[in-house]
Amino acid sequence: MKTVVHDKKNEITISSRFSIGEGHTPLIPSRFIGPSMGLKNLYFKLENLNPTGSYKDRFAAAFIGTLLQKKVPFCLATSSGNTGAALAAYCAAANIPCYVVVVDNAPADKIRQMHAYGAKTLMVGGFGINTGITNAVFSGLEQLAKAKEVSLPISAYRYCPEGMQGVESIAEEVLRDLNREVDHLFSPAGGGGLTLAVANGVLSSVTPTSCRVHCVQPLGNNTIAGALRNGLANAVEVPRSTTTVSGLQVPGILDGNETLQRCRQTGGTGFVVTDEAVYNMQTTLARKEGIFCEAAAAVSVSGLAEAVQNSEVEPDDTIVCLITGSGFKDMNSPARNTGTKSIETKYSVDNLFQFLATI
Amino acid sequence: MKTVVHDKKNEITISSRFSIGEGHTPLIPSRFIGPSMGLKNLYFKLENLNPTGSYKDRFAAAFIGTLLQKKVPFCLATSSGNTGAALAAYCAAANIPCYVVVVDNAPADKIRQMHAYGAKTLMVGGFGINTGITNAVFSGLEQLAKAKEVSLPISAYRYCPEGMQGVESIAEEVLRDLNREVDHLFSPAGGGGLTLAVANGVLSSVTPTSCRVHCVQPLGNNTIAGALRNGLANAVEVPRSTTTVSGLQVPGILDGNETLQRCRQTGGTGFVVTDEAVYNMQTTLARKEGIFCEAAAAVSVSGLAEAVQNSEVEPDDTIVCLITGSGFKDMNSPARNTGTKSIETKYSVDNLFQFLATI
Repeated sequence: MKTVVHDKKNEITISSRFSIGEGHTPLIPSRFIGPSMGLKNLYFKLENLNPTGSYKDRFAAAFIGTLLQKKVPFCLATSSGNTGAALAAYCAAANIPCYVVVVDNAPADKIRQMHAYGAKTLMVGGFGINTGITNAVFSGLEQLAKAKEVSLPISAYRYCPEGMQGVESIAEEVLRDLNREVDHLFSPAGGGGLTLAVANGVLSSVTPTSCRVHCVQPLGNNTIAGALRNGLANAVEVPRSTTTVSGLQVPGILDGNETLQRCRQTGGTGFVVTDEAVYNMQTTLARKEGIFCEAAAAVSVSGLAEAVQNSEVEPDDTIVCLITGSGFKDMNSPARNTGTKSIETKYSVDNLFQFLATI
Repeated sequence: MKTVVHDKKNEITISSRFSIGEGHTPLIPSRFIGPSMGLKNLYFKLENLNPTGSYKDRFAAAFIGTLLQKKVPFCLATSSGNTGAALAAYCAAANIPCYVVVVDNAPADKIRQMHAYGAKTLMVGGFGINTGITNAVFSGLEQLAKAKEVSLPISAYRYCPEGMQGVESIAEEVLRDLNREVDHLFSPAGGGGLTLAVANGVLSSVTPTSCRVHCVQPLGNNTIAGALRNGLANAVEVPRSTTTVSGLQVPGILDGNETLQRCRQTGGTGFVVTDEAVYNMQTTLARKEGIFCEAAAAVSVSGLAEAVQNSEVEPDDTIVCLITGSGFKDMNSPARNTGTKSIETKYSVDNLFQFLATI
């Protein structure tokens, strides 16, 4: 059976990958943030509109495709967030049981999404909190994966290059949609995998492009961005990730060194942003652009704001910011800035029309 | 500035409508449900992957486009669900204040999404519960809209044809993606607007198609489907909508008569399904297809199941079911069938690997 994905012409696209509709996400022009920064050509790549609500669907599609090829009869993962939800969905479609080892006290909403797809979640007391327990879980899982001759589907080249290759298509789509005339591409980074995938995609582009890939990190997990900016050869470990931005709290540098090197090859640099700036930008994206994204997605746009302040982009430059995940993933975070209390206020009919007479 | 939407070719699509990335949603083949019913060519149209998580974004894009043309300085709506979220997002992008009058005790999550986009919600005590209050609110709003020379953005042709025209593009996309060779298209219906839009889209298709548009309703709101099936000339009012499927609990028949007539013109008929069948199908879609949708979306597929049972479709027919909204909209509903209790179970490291040794 054919897989038809977002085809705008009178023809069928036949895809051999294992797809449930990921990729080919919209690229939309900024209406407020770009103009308010004096930028004429700012675009957002809406990865939040992937099937499970994040770019991780590209990873899961590629990874589950390889599992099916190798006839591995199950998927074993660790995640409390977007990767787990993506794997759960693709496993459901592939009819493969999915086991996700989740951190202690992982958010119930994210676990609920995995359960909806029928995944089995295994919460381990102390996992993600206690270093000894965390290391024991990871090393046990790595051994198990090795014994079964599979990769652990952690979304980093270091663990799972076959999955990360699926993510490189983001760059291809952006370059294609803008006729390769992209000057800057801003990507959020935790362990760097996404940014590295995008830089790889840009550097392997068949036709030349001068697209610079910039790496943006929260101050509390500044392993790559600062080092890239300051001309260091390698990423720098931080003793403890202190950012509160869900999804970017990553232990260790993971793909950090390669990310730094490949971004530099594109001419890109690093930007470091505060969590506060990120949450404010998340609110602005929803209220001024109509883009309901998770906080991690607002990191790229916060990096752009830094670049504008430093005059590192020109008003006429064509700029793309990656919106990595949906606001639905993270309902508590948008609520930081919204008056959810007003849910409780009830109007009478008279009061309603008194109010509406004033608008 | 250009709006680039899902373009798979090396060219730019310039759109004049007010877009934040709606439409051009994926059409994916069924892997489990179709084969398990003996069907070779079943597809799902993933309207849940629109920017705010439902097909209502097509409505909002068209409606807000007309508001902008008419220079109306605000948007006034009633909705406790998908329409409100869609309007809130498009108003945010258009920089128009959005006021949504919501029913008493509307779900907090849906209101939270509207707030995230900066909409002002106005909950009226008794609205949607007490008939007198409900009628008073509607007639007051209709007067207000008339005085301001705007339509009320209720997603029905009866109230807002300019918005509903935006929804007709679903049919165009499906026909284009499948080279017009579609035999059956199943659509869920509350007041019928979506089904009517799809039938209109099919009937106004420039090249001929034999696509039959079928109307599926829950038993508790069988205003159109039964009448269509039984050859009646008009929709039939039910004393009280008793379905629990959110979004399909509609007072009155709204677009019912026109929906019935236009479906019949396409050669389509009606199917009536139980809420229980719908919730089971919602679970199957998530667990077997990797499609996380709201219950209303599973109504179309439940209708298809009826058609298969009645031998009203052939194994080789090309069939499309509309998946109208996201599971994120309705987190409580998927949870009906998932073991959310297991969130609480915590494993020790030893127990984890004892368990994993068995997979």
